[in-house]
Amino acid sequence: MRGEIIVNYIGSALPDFQVNAYQDGEVKALTADDLRGHWSILFFYPADFSFVCPTELGDLAAHYAAFQKQNAEIYSVSEDTEFVHQAWHEQSEEVGQVAYPMIADPAGDLARHYGVLDEAAGQAYRGVFILDPQGEVRSYTINDMGIGRNAGEILRTLTAAQFVAEHGDRVCPANWHPGEETLKPGTDLVGKI
Amino acid sequence: MRGEIIVNYIGSALPDFQVNAYQDGEVKALTADDLRGHWSILFFYPADFSFVCPTELGDLAAHYAAFQKQNAEIYSVSEDTEFVHQAWHEQSEEVGQVAYPMIADPAGDLARHYGVLDEAAGQAYRGVFILDPQGEVRSYTINDMGIGRNAGEILRTLTAAQFVAEHGDRVCPANWHPGEETLKPGTDLVGKI
Amino acid sequence: MRGEIIVNYIGSALPDFQVNAYQDGEVKALTADDLRGHWSILFFYPADFSFVCPTELGDLAAHYAAFQKQNAEIYSVSEDTEFVHQAWHEQSEEVGQVAYPMIADPAGDLARHYGVLDEAAGQAYRGVFILDPQGEVRSYTINDMGIGRNAGEILRTLTAAQFVAEHGDRVCPANWHPGEETLKPGTDLVGKI
Amino acid sequence: MRGEIIVNYIGSALPDFQVNAYQDGEVKALTADDLRGHWSILFFYPADFSFVCPTELGDLAAHYAAFQKQNAEIYSVSEDTEFVHQAWHEQSEEVGQVAYPMIADPAGDLARHYGVLDEAAGQAYRGVFILDPQGEVRSYTINDMGIGRNAGEILRTLTAAQFVAEHGDRVCPANWHPGEETLKPGTDLVGKI
Amino acid sequence: MRGEIIVNYIGSALPDFQVNAYQDGEVKALTADDLRGHWSILFFYPADFSFVCPTELGDLAAHYAAFQKQNAEIYSVSEDTEFVHQAWHEQSEEVGQVAYPMIADPAGDLARHYGVLDEAAGQAYRGVFILDPQGEVRSYTINDMGIGRNAGEILRTLTAAQFVAEHGDRVCPANWHPGEETLKPGTDLVGKI
Amino acid sequence: MRGEIIVNYIGSALPDFQVNAYQDGEVKALTADDLRGHWSILFFYPADFSFVCPTELGDLAAHYAAFQKQNAEIYSVSEDTEFVHQAWHEQSEEVGQVAYPMIADPAGDLARHYGVLDEAAGQAYRGVFILDPQGEVRSYTINDMGIGRNAGEILRTLTAAQFVAEHGDRVCPANWHPGEETLKPGTDLVGKI
Amino acid sequence: MRGEIIVNYIGSALPDFQVNAYQDGEVKALTADDLRGHWSILFFYPADFSFVCPTELGDLAAHYAAFQKQNAEIYSVSEDTEFVHQAWHEQSEEVGQVAYPMIADPAGDLARHYGVLDEAAGQAYRGVFILDPQGEVRSYTINDMGIGRNAGEILRTLTAAQFVAEHGDRVCPANWHPGEETLKPGTDLVGKI
Amino acid sequence: MRGEIIVNYIGSALPDFQVNAYQDGEVKALTADDLRGHWSILFFYPADFSFVCPTELGDLAAHYAAFQKQNAEIYSVSEDTEFVHQAWHEQSEEVGQVAYPMIADPAGDLARHYGVLDEAAGQAYRGVFILDPQGEVRSYTINDMGIGRNAGEILRTLTAAQFVAEHGDRVCPANWHPGEETLKPGTDLVGKI
Amino acid sequence: MRGEIIVNYIGSALPDFQVNAYQDGEVKALTADDLRGHWSILFFYPADFSFVCPTELGDLAAHYAAFQKQNAEIYSVSEDTEFVHQAWHEQSEEVGQVAYPMIADPAGDLARHYGVLDEAAGQAYRGVFILDPQGEVRSYTINDMGIGRNAGEILRTLTAAQFVAEHGDRVCPANWHPGEETLKPGTDLVGKI
Amino acid sequence: MRGEIIVNYIGSALPDFQVNAYQDGEVKALTADDLRGHWSILFFYPADFSFVCPTELGDLAAHYAAFQKQNAEIYSVSEDTEFVHQAWHEQSEEVGQVAYPMIADPAGDLARHYGVLDEAAGQAYRGVFILDPQGEVRSYTINDMGIGRNAGEILRTLTAAQFVAEHGDRVCPANWHPGEETLKPGTDLVGKI
Repeated sequence: MRGEIIVNYIGSALPDFQVNAYQDGEVKALTADDLRGHWSILFFYPADFSFVCPTELGDLAAHYAAFQKQNAEIYSVSEDTEFVHQAWHEQSEEVGQVAYPMIADPAGDLARHYGVLDEAAGQAYRGVFILDPQGEVRSYTINDMGIGRNAGEILRTLTAAQFVAEHGDRVCPANWHPGEETLKPGTDLVGKI
Repeated sequence: MRGEIIVNYIGSALPDFQVNAYQDGEVKALTADDLRGHWSILFFYPADFSFVCPTELGDLAAHYAAFQKQNAEIYSVSEDTEFVHQAWHEQSEEVGQVAYPMIADPAGDLARHYGVLDEAAGQAYRGVFILDPQGEVRSYTINDMGIGRNAGEILRTLTAAQFVAEHGDRVCPANWHPGEETLKPGTDLVGKI
Repeated sequence: MRGEIIVNYIGSALPDFQVNAYQDGEVKALTADDLRGHWSILFFYPADFSFVCPTELGDLAAHYAAFQKQNAEIYSVSEDTEFVHQAWHEQSEEVGQVAYPMIADPAGDLARHYGVLDEAAGQAYRGVFILDPQGEVRSYTINDMGIGRNAGEILRTLTAAQFVAEHGDRVCPANWHPGEETLKPGTDLVGKI
Repeated sequence: MRGEIIVNYIGSALPDFQVNAYQDGEVKALTADDLRGHWSILFFYPADFSFVCPTELGDLAAHYAAFQKQNAEIYSVSEDTEFVHQAWHEQSEEVGQVAYPMIADPAGDLARHYGVLDEAAGQAYRGVFILDPQGEVRSYTINDMGIGRNAGEILRTLTAAQFVAEHGDRVCPANWHPGEETLKPGTDLVGKI
Repeated sequence: MRGEIIVNYIGSALPDFQVNAYQDGEVKALTADDLRGHWSILFFYPADFSFVCPTELGDLAAHYAAFQKQNAEIYSVSEDTEFVHQAWHEQSEEVGQVAYPMIADPAGDLARHYGVLDEAAGQAYRGVFILDPQGEVRSYTINDMGIGRNAGEILRTLTAAQFVAEHGDRVCPANWHPGEETLKPGTDLVGKI
Repeated sequence: MRGEIIVNYIGSALPDFQVNAYQDGEVKALTADDLRGHWSILFFYPADFSFVCPTELGDLAAHYAAFQKQNAEIYSVSEDTEFVHQAWHEQSEEVGQVAYPMIADPAGDLARHYGVLDEAAGQAYRGVFILDPQGEVRSYTINDMGIGRNAGEILRTLTAAQFVAEHGDRVCPANWHPGEETLKPGTDLVGKI
Repeated sequence: MRGEIIVNYIGSALPDFQVNAYQDGEVKALTADDLRGHWSILFFYPADFSFVCPTELGDLAAHYAAFQKQNAEIYSVSEDTEFVHQAWHEQSEEVGQVAYPMIADPAGDLARHYGVLDEAAGQAYRGVFILDPQGEVRSYTINDMGIGRNAGEILRTLTAAQFVAEHGDRVCPANWHPGEETLKPGTDLVGKI
Repeated sequence: MRGEIIVNYIGSALPDFQVNAYQDGEVKALTADDLRGHWSILFFYPADFSFVCPTELGDLAAHYAAFQKQNAEIYSVSEDTEFVHQAWHEQSEEVGQVAYPMIADPAGDLARHYGVLDEAAGQAYRGVFILDPQGEVRSYTINDMGIGRNAGEILRTLTAAQFVAEHGDRVCPANWHPGEETLKPGTDLVGKI
Repeated sequence: MRGEIIVNYIGSALPDFQVNAYQDGEVKALTADDLRGHWSILFFYPADFSFVCPTELGDLAAHYAAFQKQNAEIYSVSEDTEFVHQAWHEQSEEVGQVAYPMIADPAGDLARHYGVLDEAAGQAYRGVFILDPQGEVRSYTINDMGIGRNAGEILRTLTAAQFVAEHGDRVCPANWHPGEETLKPGTDLVGKI
Repeated sequence: MRGEIIVNYIGSALPDFQVNAYQDGEVKALTADDLRGHWSILFFYPADFSFVCPTELGDLAAHYAAFQKQNAEIYSVSEDTEFVHQAWHEQSEEVGQVAYPMIADPAGDLARHYGVLDEAAGQAYRGVFILDPQGEVRSYTINDMGIGRNAGEILRTLTAAQFVAEHGDRVCPANWHPGEETLKPGTDLVGKI
């Protein structure tokens, strides 16, 4: 089992990229710099005009205000073009409620970098990456094709990551939510919990 | 951004391995075969006798019956030896409630295979991998060192993965829980959700 | 100028591939075998829901009967998914008239093989390849992004290629159309035309 | 199908070369610089004193004034020497009408660069390349040996390429001819054509 | 038997490293510099909370004053973390008497450098290395897993090494102890002993 | 510190070799097979007719009966020839008492294999290797040039190794001597010593 | 001057090849087998319709009967096609007298094999190769571009080569012609001539 | 037949070399510089004291005045030493008439460079190279071992090469001798000879 | 000084070779087999018709009977041809007395194999190799160019080599001649001479 | 037989080295510089305390004054240490007469450089190298193990080498001794001796 190549995205930096995103009837270019200075949620999904995808985008849209309150921007990403994002946004009721940027990644640059591109299908796995304001990954989850995600859990993990970023690690107990008690680490705690 | 190496664990098979695990006052050997035939939760954590770790193990212990009801076994994994697992289990009240196998991975074989070994620290990142009865990964999450996990969300994802395994993908909407309505995919749904 | 790599598709065989195609409200899988036994027109274009593309697809749709009469099938190809083809077909009046299969090539397999994939954009150049019933290329044209093609000239070239396939080369004079006089080659013609 | 070498001549620059060309009873040397500053048609054909070739050269000769009016020069190219071009021009009635330069490429430099050299035969495929005033390819077609080309279609494509060069891409609908209506791209057109 | 790779640690320098060590209720970082300026005993053992190990650590603890009198520091090293060292120190009567630093080497850096890491087990062989104040090895012993060491012999070898460091080699007869007679080398001794 | 080459002789097998040895007025050939079937002490020293060396050989000679009683043979090894061993044996009073075989290793085969050959000096370091009846190393010590060894400690380590060979590892406490109490390992001992 | 690559065609065998040749109003294919069973003269020249070339071909044509009488066939070779050979034969009075096969080598296979292809010019140097009935070279001459050859000298060399083939080497004095005295080699001749 | 290495000596420069030559009772050193400034005939032959060789050297000796009149020096070359050249010159009547330098090439430097060294025999093939005053080859002939050369033809080729050097190529008809009519090249001659 | 390539000819076998040798008015071929079955003296010298060489050959000729009596054949070797050997033998009084074979090695095969070829000069160093009846070298000497050898010493070394071949090594004292006392080796002689 | 590696020590320079030598009751270090400025005899022999070796050393000792008179130093070399040289010198009557330096080469540096190290035996072949005052080899002889050398012949060769060094090569006839007539080379001698 030795000698294998390892990829762990925790702490890895944003790649250089330039993509188009559809938001609010406009197409605009986004680069890595646009994802710095605030927390980011990169939310990959397989394909526009497919089935589970709109419910996930809608679930996120319903929590969008809460994410913005935490100084976080959501970016949905699929391998479709910006033309298709616009057409889908105009046609689908649920997708039509999306107010965050919908990134077009037809060349696969972002999906390939984050290891979620299914090269044989030309589609992205359901991956979600939480990036800090430096653009470094602090948490990520990848599900097989049909398994939907949970916007509430993403939000909970985001707030825990923000707490650790402020107070240092070794502090957040399991399933911690903001406002709950935290731990103060020290040699006096060894074996005492 | 082209030409980079990609690691995506979705669908990847179990490696060959042999480890010791402490459970119920006993030390026994585990191999890949022992993780087949039922769903498995591989739950990596940094170190015995450290701070966040016991609360996460306790959170899982509290949901253990629900996991077992779903035909799933939980395996906690750290880079400590079985001697240390036993000593911790005997000494810590919260860890003492753990009834699932605690795998000792001092050679780092499992953590290295699943990309969660911090080689410089000799400790594992907080990673959780949901494996189906064939030992293939269906979902995984990796958090930075201090960010605790949520046993309830792991259970929800497990049940969604089991539903997809039975009924095919393109079916589970976001944040789906057992008993909720699912989708029946077809060309008539394109652009209609 | 010596030593460079050469790619000339004349006479090159079909690659192995499997793609989905949308046709007549259905999605079906196509492989290389489906393109053998009749002449094929592979018609690449950049993107669904973009501008020049529907007029080209409509121009071909208007000549579809003539191609079918020549035992030729038309296959339009873009890097969009079958979901998007369906949505576009349902939404665009001009594309709605398309009766031939619309191939979805999101992984870029066909476009990459035939040298028309713009990797940076994730879109295909405007290339058209005329394949004989063995799947070998007999003529091809590639235009820069904005330059539209001419269905009538494709049809004329197809018929010339079919005439040569039947009667041998060295026979079709320039801009030859079916029914026009052809040449009978021989040493008596050398320098006499 | 991955990992193959790709050659796409769209946008590729002129190679360095020096060849002799026969025109109007004279032999003169041509280099890449002579092909810059105006649009160029590189018109490859297999062999002097063969059959289809004179009719293609004659078809082009008949359209020569129209090409010149579009600020384009025609260059026919074969693997014969300038001595042979002269002898053929003097002997063949149809070739005798050619007023554009007839390039001698006996070393195969141009044909090899543009991928149209049949190395086993020492002859060129029937390829036509439309170059802009920078010497970059904007459109090209390659036919199998016996399939003649159409001077009118070359002229139509040239004018479309010139229109795009002036007004940007995403504008020329299929089979567009000068004077016909063109498109003005914008997000308001998505899915509306 | 020629051409094989040789590793002999005599005279080899300290590697760069940073580890944590538990001593006297505190965890502190140690680097190579901390091991220079005095003689050092690196005492590797397989695992905390295992069987032979505490008796060896206790044997050394009993001789600690004598080592300190010789200007030597003892460093015990295992692949366990500092958390485990603390827990063991607090729980085991024999280990509780250890006053020298207990190095935590969970990443295996020291054990791997000195060739005593059993990679398959993630544990260290029973190796002891005597380093001079420059950090260079002057004597070392490696035993198979179950074979305990002898603190008295380590002390005897240390004093012999110190005598040689002061008076040059070719002087200490076998099983020499401080105060015993030594040899003065010269050509007159050749063959006379 | 990663990626370095490791040599650990514990458990390594005898190399193939053929050497001459002087014993009891005779020169005889020795191969690897002669070192199997009993325990062996390979005792390397720098040079015949030098200073510390005869006292070490004499120390071993004085313990020879005790080693033989433990079913162990002693083999002294230097890089001198058998002619020199004989001459030294005849001339030196202390070496004259040696009754075990004195191996001549002028080609350096044994010293190089066991990593104790100082290539620049053509002499061996003071290394002692304890081999079990299969010829595998169970313990070894290497001292810098002037540091003499202790026949009594070699004997003690031999008997501990033999005890482990018979009763399994995890049994011999530190500085154990035959007849002293040993440990019986089990989970009930974890943390109890 | 050492280490350079050497090519010496004496004794080298015919390559595999297939070319067209024009002879007596016909075009026929020639392969290596057609050049075996009789002596062959491979007569390379730069280009049809050029200046020195027809006088050389005419000089050979005038000696053709003498070559045939010696069981030798003449093959002229240029890089022009068979179409051009025919046109030249029909148009030039001097070339019109050629009755031997005129090989077309537009792919350069023969010229490249025999080292007489000027790759930059796409023309052959003036080389003449005399092949025996096994197709092996017995004599060859290569002149720079403008230097004409001498059919009479080729004939003289052919007859000398035939004499040696029959009677062994070391026999033909300088400028020997058939019927002249030859030498009978032996040790009695050493230093006597 | 593609991809083979080509050696064509036409136009190749003199290598650096230093050899001894016997001439007129003296041995002197020759370098490349000595062969520049006049035309040179390098005349290789297999061996001194052998059979055909003296007749060839004598044939050249008889034409020596004519070569000198053309500003050309003759250099005979064999793989024998200068000692042997002297002995042969003194002993053989025919060789005794040689007044040009006889180069000794026992190391094979010249013969190997010009591709005429039979490495297995240590002898040179019968090669003759005509070099212009820059030391570049303008014509060369290589015969198999027993086939003698013709001094008259060498002289004829030399004068043709000199004529071309002065008046440019494309001028000397076949078997041209000084004083005969030459050609004036131009497009008016194409196909007229 | 480590890692260099070593060539030591003691014990090395004869290479495969075929050379011509002049002896007694005849030229005959010699191969490796001809040098087996008796002892051989390979006597290399720089060049025929040079200065020191004839005196060395004459010195050997004077001892020829004594060598033959020892079942040894002498082979002189230079890089000259057999033609030159014959001419020299006929012309030089001293060389004329040579009755042993004079090998011609113009290709340098023997001299190169035995490391005595001066590649820059194309001549052999003064080397003498004594080969046993198996063709293996038992002694060899190489002198710089001008240093003559001594036939008597070669003979003495030959007889010593033959004595060792019969009675084993470790027997012939320095400067031993046949009939003189020899040594009987045994452990009783160590240090006694 | 081509392409093999050649080692010829004639003219090769001294390597860098440092060795110990025993002379006159002292051990001193020798480097390459100590062997320059006078002629040197490097006299390798297999082993101290063996059989033929003392007689050879004694033979040289008896000629030592004559060598010194020729400005030459003798250096005997074996793979034994300086301790062993001293012991042997003190014990053996014949070796006790040696007054020249006895080099200890236990690391094999000199023997390996001069190609006389038998790596399998760790002993040197009987080689003798005559070095000029620049440290370059002028003559060398290597004998198989048991064949003794002749101090007188070494002395004769030394004086011949010195004569050549002073008067140039091509002068010393075979078996030349000082005072005997020498040769004056010139073209008048060719073939006259």
